[in-house]
Amino acid sequence: MSERENDPDPDPDPDPDPDPDRGRDHDVVVLRRGVHGMPIDDYATDLRERLPGARVRVARTPAEERDLVPEATVVTGHHLDPSLLEDADDLDLFACSYAGYGHLPTDAFADHGVAVTTASGVHGPNMAEYVVGAILAFVRGFPEAWRRQGRREWRHYQADELQGSTVTVVGLGAIGTAVVERLSGFGVHTIGVRNSPEAGGPTDEVLGVDRLHDALARTDYLVLAVPLTDETEGLVDAAALDTLPPNAVVVNVARGPVVDTDDLVDALQGSHVRGAALDVTDPEPLPPEHVLWTFENVFITPHNSGHTPQYYARLADIVAENVDRLDADEDLVNQVVP
Amino acid sequence: MSERENDPDPDPDPDPDPDPDRGRDHDVVVLRRGVHGMPIDDYATDLRERLPGARVRVARTPAEERDLVPEATVVTGHHLDPSLLEDADDLDLFACSYAGYGHLPTDAFADHGVAVTTASGVHGPNMAEYVVGAILAFVRGFPEAWRRQGRREWRHYQADELQGSTVTVVGLGAIGTAVVERLSGFGVHTIGVRNSPEAGGPTDEVLGVDRLHDALARTDYLVLAVPLTDETEGLVDAAALDTLPPNAVVVNVARGPVVDTDDLVDALQGSHVRGAALDVTDPEPLPPEHVLWTFENVFITPHNSGHTPQYYARLADIVAENVDRLDADEDLVNQVVP
Repeated sequence: MSERENDPDPDPDPDPDPDPDRGRDHDVVVLRRGVHGMPIDDYATDLRERLPGARVRVARTPAEERDLVPEATVVTGHHLDPSLLEDADDLDLFACSYAGYGHLPTDAFADHGVAVTTASGVHGPNMAEYVVGAILAFVRGFPEAWRRQGRREWRHYQADELQGSTVTVVGLGAIGTAVVERLSGFGVHTIGVRNSPEAGGPTDEVLGVDRLHDALARTDYLVLAVPLTDETEGLVDAAALDTLPPNAVVVNVARGPVVDTDDLVDALQGSHVRGAALDVTDPEPLPPEHVLWTFENVFITPHNSGHTPQYYARLADIVAENVDRLDADEDLVNQVVP
Repeated sequence: MSERENDPDPDPDPDPDPDPDRGRDHDVVVLRRGVHGMPIDDYATDLRERLPGARVRVARTPAEERDLVPEATVVTGHHLDPSLLEDADDLDLFACSYAGYGHLPTDAFADHGVAVTTASGVHGPNMAEYVVGAILAFVRGFPEAWRRQGRREWRHYQADELQGSTVTVVGLGAIGTAVVERLSGFGVHTIGVRNSPEAGGPTDEVLGVDRLHDALARTDYLVLAVPLTDETEGLVDAAALDTLPPNAVVVNVARGPVVDTDDLVDALQGSHVRGAALDVTDPEPLPPEHVLWTFENVFITPHNSGHTPQYYARLADIVAENVDRLDADEDLVNQVVP
């Protein structure tokens, strides 16, 4: 989890009067694939504002990537072909622009002595806003409102109330923690489920994964915010869905395979759960013929809860901080290699 | 504002072991029109649980109403025909089941020495959940998600971020206060606008109504939670909409005429505001041919943000408390007459 997650200052604007030497002697190469459709030049601008002493260049083509990476001390982007590491003698850091790094050739980076960091923490505020918004949309029956509005039908319908409910958050990293922070004013009981319950957490209760079912049995809203690992794949399966009360709603902002899709479909068809909000699915993208599209009580978004207009600003904060730490020979933020 | 608004216990269940004499010598008559389509017998049950010593009866027909009211010490419901007051010699209290009381013959109640109380505060949690949910639906572009889901279209779209925004709440009664409480974990700046700014409030800033435009000019989300009075009718007019930044969203859970509908339509058609969430409209119900139905960026609900499954339980809490206070000759909660 990034240290900036709990930064009390919500304004990601850079220091208006930065050190003009910050980033001196660094050659930062920004790879061309942007995040969530945002222009990559915006990211380069955010980096230049924070590192006025550095040279920051965008590699706009494969050829430019091949030309610029050998001169770089820092490369930032989604992925780097390991063949480019051969000539990258000055490269100290690959700053991945995503929170996940399962797609990266981590062994190759380690072999070449290149540190790898992630964008972990960048998504906390926006994904938490998505989660609480999705919960409240279920609470207040907003999908029913939209359907009636489409018919121009002014007719009361009944809703639920979040206050007094129990929200279980599986995974208390940057995203799960941000969800719990935002629920603080709603009068809910929160249960955190994590691998290391002895580490505590921001929730009213913290349980180990071995006690997942103890939490599920009392859960009104189940929020999944764990990385995908061998342990979390299929975590929400038929047994878990059986343990959830039938009024429970599943909110998945983790990865699609954390929920067993066939088991979820069975539970939906039998009304064993009240509904689901899925920003991630398995398979993904969800093909148009998939039965998950057919449910009135399933809300599907195209894996974009991670989008925020502040994405590049917060990512640039992390990368600039890590450039400082490289120079000071300190441990890096969000370091996953070595 | 009801004292129970800030009750830290979100569970409205009654005391499991109540005083069996509570409400003794009281004759409580429940009128037959329910709230938000909820069966009136549920309300009578909630009253009996809290006042086991009282006689609680439901007047299911106009004839029963004429028969039962003359024996009553407390009548509770939406409205009471003032002609029934003539024979209601024992009547101490009319406990209106709604928060508003503009429809009541208050002079007649006063003339007959009958106190009138309201349901103010009952709606705080649920209306605040509606408001924050509507804001987050705009933030995360949920209406666009619903449209794409209807087409089975898996395609990213961009969203906004609430953190760092300014939310202005006009009216800091039970509902406005509950909204501000629920925003506490979101990292927003809050401005409260009220008649009596010297009274302070839970927001980061509190301004008088005379400084409304100072607030509007800095507002991203404008929440209207005021009663309808001569002063608040047309409060959000063309001038106010001009002062709001074009990215601002108007959320109205007050009464329809607090917003000048024609001026709002003009502002929407010119993209001078980003959108609106309207639980109340003027006219109301909104007729099917009304232009407000046509906007993609207007979310309309049929004046049901006040609905909550806890409505009767919280209302019964207030009425039972006031029965105790009648017996102790104390000031009543939510008293509006005399």
